[in-house]
Parts: sequence; structure tokens; C-alpha cells
Amino acid sequence: MIKTKIEKIRNLLTEGKSDGILISSVANIVYLTGYSGFSIEEREAYLVVTKDSQYIITDGRYSETIKKEVKDFSLEIRSSKNSLEDIFKNIVRENQIKSLGVEEDDLRVKEYKALSKVFQKLVGVSINPHRAIKTLEEINFIEEACKLGDKTFSYILKKIKVGMSEKEVAWEMEQFIKSQGATLSFPTIVAFSENSSVPHHQLGHKKMEEQNGQFILLDFGVKIENYCSDMTRTIFWGKTDAKKEKIYNTVKEAQEKAVEYINQQISHSVRNDKDSAQVDIKSNTPEVLLLAREVDKMARDYIVSQGYASIPHSLGHGIGLQVHEHPFLSSKSKETLEEGMVFSIEPGIYIEGFGGVRIEDLYVIEKNGLRQLTKSPKELLIV
Amino acid sequence: MIKTKIEKIRNLLTEGKSDGILISSVANIVYLTGYSGFSIEEREAYLVVTKDSQYIITDGRYSETIKKEVKDFSLEIRSSKNSLEDIFKNIVRENQIKSLGVEEDDLRVKEYKALSKVFQKLVGVSINPHRAIKTLEEINFIEEACKLGDKTFSYILKKIKVGMSEKEVAWEMEQFIKSQGATLSFPTIVAFSENSSVPHHQLGHKKMEEQNGQFILLDFGVKIENYCSDMTRTIFWGKTDAKKEKIYNTVKEAQEKAVEYINQQISHSVRNDKDSAQVDIKSNTPEVLLLAREVDKMARDYIVSQGYASIPHSLGHGIGLQVHEHPFLSSKSKETLEEGMVFSIEPGIYIEGFGGVRIEDLYVIEKNGLRQLTKSPKELLIV
Repeated sequence: MIKTKIEKIRNLLTEGKSDGILISSVANIVYLTGYSGFSIEEREAYLVVTKDSQYIITDGRYSETIKKEVKDFSLEIRSSKNSLEDIFKNIVRENQIKSLGVEEDDLRVKEYKALSKVFQKLVGVSINPHRAIKTLEEINFIEEACKLGDKTFSYILKKIKVGMSEKEVAWEMEQFIKSQGATLSFPTIVAFSENSSVPHHQLGHKKMEEQNGQFILLDFGVKIENYCSDMTRTIFWGKTDAKKEKIYNTVKEAQEKAVEYINQQISHSVRNDKDSAQVDIKSNTPEVLLLAREVDKMARDYIVSQGYASIPHSLGHGIGLQVHEHPFLSSKSKETLEEGMVFSIEPGIYIEGFGGVRIEDLYVIEKNGLRQLTKSPKELLIV
Repeated sequence: MIKTKIEKIRNLLTEGKSDGILISSVANIVYLTGYSGFSIEEREAYLVVTKDSQYIITDGRYSETIKKEVKDFSLEIRSSKNSLEDIFKNIVRENQIKSLGVEEDDLRVKEYKALSKVFQKLVGVSINPHRAIKTLEEINFIEEACKLGDKTFSYILKKIKVGMSEKEVAWEMEQFIKSQGATLSFPTIVAFSENSSVPHHQLGHKKMEEQNGQFILLDFGVKIENYCSDMTRTIFWGKTDAKKEKIYNTVKEAQEKAVEYINQQISHSVRNDKDSAQVDIKSNTPEVLLLAREVDKMARDYIVSQGYASIPHSLGHGIGLQVHEHPFLSSKSKETLEEGMVFSIEPGIYIEGFGGVRIEDLYVIEKNGLRQLTKSPKELLIV
């Protein structure tokens, strides 16, 4: 599996006209090596892939582990006696590298300037988009994470009660997830009442009140085998009213509009391809190109048509080793959606000082349409 | 407090010969605004500080919160209708900016190239080193975090037992820390037996065995009010033997050598300054310059003199909003240690396939010497 992935990257050498590719982002290092122990806050490792070789560069803290766990790569240990510059110079010599592909969306300016002194030419290369189409194994991990997310949601529904703070609810959820041997894919968002109008509300000490109709927004994810899930549900305390119900239903319908649109496009594409043995929604016929920005537009326009402000964020995002990755479903996206991609669809309506509703699910594109991976109920729920 | 910090950054404008400074790193955004809700994995905000103004640039998900919590900055919301480029162009116009200082160790190449199109000139500017000397308030937060770390250590000593896995021990510690309203400053390291020879061991399912003399290495940190603690203890199960005791004592003595050296240098400096009203170890007299690399050398040389391999990592690091920050106590460091700095001293001896010992404490430099902030016992401990 890992060898196939490296070959995919190696193919970029000819496309990108570089003799080597430097991989610096931790997610791509996990993708290519399977090892996930490096910090995302500090630069602790690089990979270099050339025509004939592949290297992993790290320091003494990791050498023993990498020797055991990352056997496909030649290990280079940087130290006070073997500087990063020396290691790169050796790689240049051994592989006759003139130009090096670098991840411009990850590499720091300081690193770029240092590399410029060793490599004759640096060119930008994009690794991230290559992770957008998932293998079956990857989809299985995401699905497992989604299942635990669903369990977490039904667990917390039974626990939530007046007097609990947002922090306490989040902590109950975290304990449940970790007791199942998983971790969080990002810090859980719990927002009560008018806090729900802040799409990325930071957990606080606000307590659930004895107030009917309170919004309770839960946005959380589970990570299993490095793969992430992500789901949002908004529920109400005690009862609702017509205004809140209209907001809720509009968000739910906006999500349905987006899903329907994708399914329609796929079924067109399947029809167009009915004579060919292989169904391929990547078909070059322009009418079946499934544009991410069109999906965003379906949900966004619907919400605006119902008299609400446009969604203050994009409609959705790919997910995998990172919570947010390709493809991006936004009004500016130039990406097309293809079979094997996994992403969220998460419309929302937010009214400052009043409250907000977001509904978010993960979907995978399969041959005959979208399959929803998060399965928690979406009917307006009153607890 | 925040205003003073911004003034400190503003002073760099004259030094760096730039008309504005772009702050991109999340830690520096927390430092200057007090707001800690932005993701460290994705770029969600920037600050721009000019001679007369300061801006915070973010997106719609954060606008409501920032309006409330970050009042000293003008808020600029990027959106599909107000691109980042447009925002920067406006700032250039309003402030007549020709050259912009950027954090080259944080900014991505892609961002740098985009900024080059808007600003006539980009120059590197270092913000991080300005966080090395802490205010009393900052030291108090770190000390609080250290205290909870000490409590966590004595809590886990009572819990640890044969049959528990590394993951389970780490999880017990995390639950304790979070039940006290704090969070982790980094993922806890728990390493049993020969796993302790890997300085950054990734938690596994390895279980504590009924095997006397087993190494148990615990490296963990607590975060309170965004400030981090960090401590390592290595203890033994059942009993030890002469070989393990020698390793342990050598590490402990190496830490003592480093501490003694710093205290000696400070007392020289205090003596040199005895006629002046103010004690200042930053004194320009060369004999009292306290070089970080000399401290590293004291501990490192001692370990080698006892017949062990040199420490495969640096001796220590500053700590504050980030777990690793200035000053860095390594053999290559060019930094000097000064009053108000808080850092770790953490020598270690690691023998592959056998086991390892690391002892790590945090210290603050005060007028009359080092004060240790982590207070857990360091006598060879057998549980």
C-alpha cells in the first residue's frame, strides 16, 4: 500500500520537472510512511523522494523507532555533527538533483531560503490533492471513526442536563471516545444558547439553563488509525418555536439540496456512460463534471432564498488524515468531485445574539451516488 | 499588559526598517491578543502592526468572538467578497507601507509569494525571542501548571500497577489533569522497560510487567491559561541494580552540574554588580555572560565523562505559550540566559534495547539564582 503511494508521488517527478520531491507536511509523512509520531507544531522530519531512492530525515529522538517502523526509507539522522545542510548536500550528490519540488503550502520561508543554498532550483509541488481520492482501506477507517462518533452522540444525549457547562459536556464526550481507544480529531465544540451563533465557538463555562428552546450545538470528531470523522448536530432543550423550527428545517433542506444535486449529476454521468464497462464520473464530457463550487451554491442559494444570510463558511471539506483537506466545497473552489472522495456537507444559519444551527455529515462518492457515513438522526430533536 | 506587548513589537519597526509587521504564528497571536481559539494546523488569522494601527484579520467563523474579546485591534473579515489580498492592499494604502516584516520561521512559501505581490519589500523579523523573558504574570501561570504537574505525578504513582498499558497510564494522567480544569501541553509520554530508551516514545499497548527493575519513564505537561509546564521522571518497578542506579545517578548529577554552573555564573554577576543598585546579569562584562551552550556542555560532558553516549537531544528549552520556545539550551545555541527566562534542564541517558533515564525540571532565573518550578522528588524511586 505504502509503495503504491510513493509511486504516485514519484510520478510527480516527471510532471513537475524536478529531480526530487521534499515532503515536509506531517500529514503527508503519515500518508507515505504510516508513522504518525511527529509533532505538527515543530519540524521534526522530512522525506525526500527521488527517481531511485527515498529518504527520511529526522533526529536522534526518533531514530530507534523509525528504524523499526519505516523500513522502506533510508534513515538520515541530523545532529550537531551531521547538519541538515550536509544531509541535503549528500542527497544532491547521490542523486544528481538539480531541482527539488517543495510543498509551498507547508514549507516555511526560512527553510526555503536555506534549501535555496543547497539546491539549484526549487519548484512548487502539490501533494495534498493526491490524498483526496481514498482507498477502500482509508474509507473503512473513516467509517469506523464515524460509527464511534454516532455512538458518542447517542451517549451524550442521555448525559446532557441542566447545570452542565459546555466544558463538562465536551469532557464527557472526550472521556467516552478515549475509553473506546480512539482520540479526538479536533477540539470538540459545544455551544449553548446564543453561543451557537458563533460557528467556531470556544468552549466556555456557560451552563445549560432551565430555559426551554435553548440551542445545543455539538461539533466533534473521532480519530481512528489516524483517520478523522467530523459531525455536527444541533438540538433543542425542552421545546422549540416556529422561528427556530424554520431555521432548523432550512438548514436540513439545504443539506438535502446539495446531496440531491450530487446524486443527480452522478446518475447523469452513469447514464452517459452506460455503454462503457467502467463507470467513471471523471468523464471528460463537460456536462457531467461535478464541480465542488456548484454543490456549495445549491445549499448557499437555498438558504439565502429562504431569507437568511449566506453561510459564513464554506459548505464542506474533504477529510482523511486531516480534518480539513481536499476537496474543498466552497464558492471559490476549482475542484471537481470524484468517486472515492470523502467530504462533509455542513450548511448553517447563524443569527448573532440569538443562536445558530449547523448540520454536518460525512459522505463518500461511490459509483452510484453518495453514501452517508455519519448516521445519527437528523430529525429536529428535543431533549 | 497587552498594550505593552504590542509596543514591544512596534519597537521592532525601527530596528527592522519595515513599516509594518505581519504576525502569523498562533503563539504570537495569543501573546499579543490574549485570544487562543485559532487552530495551529490551519491559517485562520493574521495580525498586522504598523506605527499607528494594529489589525486582526480572520474569517466569519470568528468575527463575533473577536469583536468581543480582542478590542485593541481593528477587525478585518476576509470572505469571498473581501479577499485577503484586498485587505492587505487597504492596509498598505492606509499606512503607506513599503516594506513588511514577516515571521520567516512561521510563514509558508505560498503565503510569502502572495504577499510579495502586494508589498514592495518583505523582510524577516523575529518575534519569538521576545517572548523568552517572562512577566511575573506569565511565571505565575507556568508555576501553577507545574504545581498541577506535581500533583499529577503523585496521583499516578498511587495508580500505576502491573498489567496497565502505557496508554492506560497516560489516560489516567490526562483524566486527572482535565478533571482539575486544565489541559495537556503535549501528548503524554509513558514508556515502560526498553521503550524508555526512545526519547520521544509513542504511546503503545505495552503493559507493565511483573518484572523487577523495569524502567517507567513519564514525560508530561499541563497547560493553564495557555501556559505550559513540562516534567520528566523515571522510576523503577520492584527494585533496581547497580547498572540502572549508576545511569540514574549520572543523569541526576548531570542536571545538578548544569544548575550549579548557572548559579555560579549568576553569583559572579551579582558580585560584579554589587556596587550598582540594580542587579543585571545581562551586564556587558564578558565574564558574566551566561551562554546557553555552556550550560548544555556542562551536563553533556559530565555524562560522556562517565562513559555514556552523549545526550541525543539538547539539554533544555524555554517554555511558555509553547512547550518549546526561546531560549534553547543546545550545543549550537547562541543565546544567553537572562533574568526572567523559564526553561527546562533535562539530561538523559538512553541505551537501545535496554532502557533510558531522563530527568526534567523547569527553572526560572531570578536575581539571585535559579528557582526550580517543578517540585516532584528526584531521589531514585522504586514503586
